[in-house]
Amino acid sequence: MKVEKDRLNQLKRDAIQGFIKYIGMKAVSLSPGRFTTRLKLEKRHLQQDGFAHAGLVAAMADHTAGYASFSLVPADRRILTMEYKISYFRPAGGDYLECQGHVIKAGRQVLFTQADVYAVKGKTKTLVARAMHTMTAVPVEKMPKA
Amino acid sequence: MKVEKDRLNQLKRDAIQGFIKYIGMKAVSLSPGRFTTRLKLEKRHLQQDGFAHAGLVAAMADHTAGYASFSLVPADRRILTMEYKISYFRPAGGDYLECQGHVIKAGRQVLFTQADVYAVKGKTKTLVARAMHTMTAVPVEKMPKA
Amino acid sequence: MKVEKDRLNQLKRDAIQGFIKYIGMKAVSLSPGRFTTRLKLEKRHLQQDGFAHAGLVAAMADHTAGYASFSLVPADRRILTMEYKISYFRPAGGDYLECQGHVIKAGRQVLFTQADVYAVKGKTKTLVARAMHTMTAVPVEKMPKA
Amino acid sequence: MKVEKDRLNQLKRDAIQGFIKYIGMKAVSLSPGRFTTRLKLEKRHLQQDGFAHAGLVAAMADHTAGYASFSLVPADRRILTMEYKISYFRPAGGDYLECQGHVIKAGRQVLFTQADVYAVKGKTKTLVARAMHTMTAVPVEKMPKA
Repeated sequence: MKVEKDRLNQLKRDAIQGFIKYIGMKAVSLSPGRFTTRLKLEKRHLQQDGFAHAGLVAAMADHTAGYASFSLVPADRRILTMEYKISYFRPAGGDYLECQGHVIKAGRQVLFTQADVYAVKGKTKTLVARAMHTMTAVPVEKMPKA
Repeated sequence: MKVEKDRLNQLKRDAIQGFIKYIGMKAVSLSPGRFTTRLKLEKRHLQQDGFAHAGLVAAMADHTAGYASFSLVPADRRILTMEYKISYFRPAGGDYLECQGHVIKAGRQVLFTQADVYAVKGKTKTLVARAMHTMTAVPVEKMPKA
Repeated sequence: MKVEKDRLNQLKRDAIQGFIKYIGMKAVSLSPGRFTTRLKLEKRHLQQDGFAHAGLVAAMADHTAGYASFSLVPADRRILTMEYKISYFRPAGGDYLECQGHVIKAGRQVLFTQADVYAVKGKTKTLVARAMHTMTAVPVEKMPKA
Repeated sequence: MKVEKDRLNQLKRDAIQGFIKYIGMKAVSLSPGRFTTRLKLEKRHLQQDGFAHAGLVAAMADHTAGYASFSLVPADRRILTMEYKISYFRPAGGDYLECQGHVIKAGRQVLFTQADVYAVKGKTKTLVARAMHTMTAVPVEKMPKA
């Protein structure tokens, strides 16, 4: 699918707002079906044992996969997460987290995605979590009201 | 399993720190194997369409299930999330979110939990998401270093 | 939603065919959004340690949830499983397995379901697994060809 | 980890028994942390619309990931599935199914695995499903009795 450069740039800006801006995620790169994000780890992100909170890692995976999906649907459709599963291979810490999301299978209404989260400390990059999502693309006029 | 009242009170306080405090979660009640939490919805919690971000809902479910698990393990063990799956039955909005977590099966090293998230608007309470987690109880001395 | 009795009876018969008949599942009862099935455990169902194979337990959960979903959609729609997660609380054995599936949330195109699997030995019934599925209801004319 | 050739051969034989033999799975190749299996599709494997039953596909993914895990644990440990999630990208049909399972992260007691299932028709091989599992390695003497 051909995706306009303007559309990608707009989505990349759009991606960082609300909760995602609040927790400090940054957009790194967005291409059709692929999105990479980063988050500098700070004290506010940690859980009781000093690791990045599992909920933070999951939010990052969810949002990164969500905008990877956005890049493959027409501009009059919105993306909602229907469900996901995330596995934590090890507790996450370090300088920052990087998340790489991609679309495995894009249908008109349903998109399957995967997102890998890496912990980066100095020059070491370690896979800490993998998530698999089912996203739905909803026409704007059918979106429920917030 | 008999759980000391002091231990429950301490866990309930301990539950609200770091990332969880930052996003505004509150502990409502903690009994052995059951934890209830709330979060008043504010602008900082929303995604691009004005709903509570799926990542926020998941963080709430994860943490609530995590401390429900904590309440059933000896004081020298820590809880880490190994994995979970969450399904979103409808987008979440309203005045606040409430999460009810409980332990389905508690083993010595592995605990299976479930967490239901409700959106509350005025007097209406709607189930918006359900998560199933696998938690692990790690002896303090074997915890990885953050 | 009103579901005709004839439709339920037809679905209950329809449920036991192909792979499901081959592995020995039986329909117990089907009401709108709820389906119960059973499977008498035999040698052919076991894995290397003498327990019911995890794949068998999952097939049972998937199919039971699938036909619980069928009971809530118009007769010109077919049900396909988009994804599920299943947790095994303990290895399963005994005289037979019973599975209780129900629809948590039924949309026009997407249905969320849950299925609990019990192992029954004599008079003891033990919860051994819980699954959560996302089903899709596809109009017959849009079904892919087998 | 060095895995003896004899051990791998024995595991490869051991993999095909009970339920797995009954449904017709074959072992193709087993190396440390990787297992490939195949299943020739027959009428007994199908669901109501003529596709391979989702439960069959899941059983294949589960078992393939299970023996990929077996290949990385000491001979006095047994593998049990704690949970998995499987996504179905499209209905599966064709001549046979092939499943490729691998271990993502092997701990002493917990192993995270992934299994991809392909449908093969003539010269076309299509990814139809992906599963992520959490396996546990249990010392023989601690195994529950079947």
